[in-house]
Amino acid sequence: MPETHGRRRGALRTLLTGAGVDALLVTDLLNIRYLTGFTGSNAALLLHAEGDGKTLFCTDGRYTTQAAAEVPDLETVVDRASAAALVAKAGKTKTYGRVGFESQHVSVETYEALNAQLPLKRTPGLVERLREVKDEAEIEALRQACAAADRALDDLVAAGGLRPGRTELDIARDLENRMLEHGSAAPSFASIIAAGAHSAIPHHQPTHAELKRGDFVKMDFGATVDGYHSDMTRTFVLGEPADWQREVYELVHAAQAAGVAAVVPGAEVSDVDAAARGVIADAGHGEHFAHGLGHGVGLQIHEAPSFAATGVGTLAAGMAVTVEPGVYLAGRGGVRIEDTLVVRAGEPELLTLSTKNLVVV
Amino acid sequence: MPETHGRRRGALRTLLTGAGVDALLVTDLLNIRYLTGFTGSNAALLLHAEGDGKTLFCTDGRYTTQAAAEVPDLETVVDRASAAALVAKAGKTKTYGRVGFESQHVSVETYEALNAQLPLKRTPGLVERLREVKDEAEIEALRQACAAADRALDDLVAAGGLRPGRTELDIARDLENRMLEHGSAAPSFASIIAAGAHSAIPHHQPTHAELKRGDFVKMDFGATVDGYHSDMTRTFVLGEPADWQREVYELVHAAQAAGVAAVVPGAEVSDVDAAARGVIADAGHGEHFAHGLGHGVGLQIHEAPSFAATGVGTLAAGMAVTVEPGVYLAGRGGVRIEDTLVVRAGEPELLTLSTKNLVVV
Repeated sequence: MPETHGRRRGALRTLLTGAGVDALLVTDLLNIRYLTGFTGSNAALLLHAEGDGKTLFCTDGRYTTQAAAEVPDLETVVDRASAAALVAKAGKTKTYGRVGFESQHVSVETYEALNAQLPLKRTPGLVERLREVKDEAEIEALRQACAAADRALDDLVAAGGLRPGRTELDIARDLENRMLEHGSAAPSFASIIAAGAHSAIPHHQPTHAELKRGDFVKMDFGATVDGYHSDMTRTFVLGEPADWQREVYELVHAAQAAGVAAVVPGAEVSDVDAAARGVIADAGHGEHFAHGLGHGVGLQIHEAPSFAATGVGTLAAGMAVTVEPGVYLAGRGGVRIEDTLVVRAGEPELLTLSTKNLVVV
Repeated sequence: MPETHGRRRGALRTLLTGAGVDALLVTDLLNIRYLTGFTGSNAALLLHAEGDGKTLFCTDGRYTTQAAAEVPDLETVVDRASAAALVAKAGKTKTYGRVGFESQHVSVETYEALNAQLPLKRTPGLVERLREVKDEAEIEALRQACAAADRALDDLVAAGGLRPGRTELDIARDLENRMLEHGSAAPSFASIIAAGAHSAIPHHQPTHAELKRGDFVKMDFGATVDGYHSDMTRTFVLGEPADWQREVYELVHAAQAAGVAAVVPGAEVSDVDAAARGVIADAGHGEHFAHGLGHGVGLQIHEAPSFAATGVGTLAAGMAVTVEPGVYLAGRGGVRIEDTLVVRAGEPELLTLSTKNLVVV
């Protein structure tokens, strides 16, 4: 997709003037992947405001073949010390002017070494700002990642995989393998499978604990496709739910719907959080929902924006976010329901399509 | 293992004076795990030279229960901005003196924010220096991780899992699942399974390519136990090997043995590299072995020391390292043989025990 990457570099150039630099040294590998398509483990990019003709890409000898295939449209320098090599080149040729760097990623030690060669200016977060709004190629990758997770869950249920006697770890492994079968390159993060009282722990790590009749089974998992992450949580009940389980479930379900309905272009992120949190607080469970409502998702599982009571910023069409309220009753159990969705004019586009009605297995 | 962690903090204290500081702000999560046992995703540690009584640990509200269990022996502050909270506390109480920080990990932006509260001194790599020599608890975790990989490979072969028609991805998934069954928490890194001509690519990512009779099958994979990584490569032949395959295999096998034999306390890392590389160069294949001979392994899959021609430093008893020479013939195939081992007085202790004789399946 050289066109896509060229377009992204063009968009980044429009931010350089505002940041007071003539060029930007990009060293974060995800930002490099976003701007060039390169997927190797060592690279740097020196993006010049004047265009790709003066822009340099650098990687080491292990990746020359891969770089030729993935980054055919940029001049490539081969050097193991990729960032240092580009800074040295910029220092020598004098045509790069004032050079910014990703000061939110570069360590103090690396900065000291680079800055000794060429004075660099702190310009944090420029590429991350662009990455908040996804283009259609990114949304398609997210859609496929979400579909892999949906299908894995479908298959798991259809195969009777959720039954008393299986362990949380069994379910985690089963889901992760089924996602691979549906095109996921790897799990999006360490799957959270939490049964019974464990479901009250928001970020429980799966154990050898066995599923029992009457348990909530909370499953928070995702797939990756082309580097893009899906994120979905569903909570089922094993056998006939008790009244308190129905009540908590329906409350979280309603809160999640309210959160999703608040996801519109121009909305303040704190208002989206409040829309869902208010439903839970009104039911007297405010203290049982102690985490943020959701987060942006893309090349990282957690990226901007962040839905929190103290969050600042507004939504724009094309952002991909999660909405994931939960109610956790310590020692008893908890429910979280989470979708990945895209902000669109009008209604958001839901990417995770598994049912959110209470499933009794 | 509070005792183990207390001992490690004691060892770190002996390095503080030499670094010219009275306290060290530790923010790297692996270093924190090493020094405290904490396995969560947000923490900071302010280690005081005078002892644990003045040492502070900080994490956020999600981890209070976990921190109480994992870090019972340190005063714990609960704050989402963990590093900033400890620096603020140190600034207020004036009892921490000169404070060092992990300048090889901390970003320039984070440093600027922390340094505005309390001037910090760059003290890179202190904990990493300690981590190079493993204690027996660490070696036991490495031993178990290596055993999980050995058993997974045994099972794979016994089950007839290496046969024509299966894909590289099938083998990767199969090995990874079998490692989980043998106690691995997760793969140590993305498994490299490379069949036929792909085996000539040192870091090949597995594909849907099918194994064929006559192929080299190169498998580089590992397990993790208690956060410690194993790393092993074995190369098999599917069916009767051709003469060139036997020749390349025996060459790499001899080079690997020479490298292992050079792993003794006091050896220069460049000499260990040379011991194996010389065998390959003498056979006229020097240009077909373009990567380093090996690396330290522990809480990270790659850590110090590094076996390379340009490497500097000497081995000490208790270091855990890999020895992994390879010969790669582009378009035809390649062989790598890799063990994880521990430097011991006399002979090294081999942790990966799968046979290194040529296996024909």
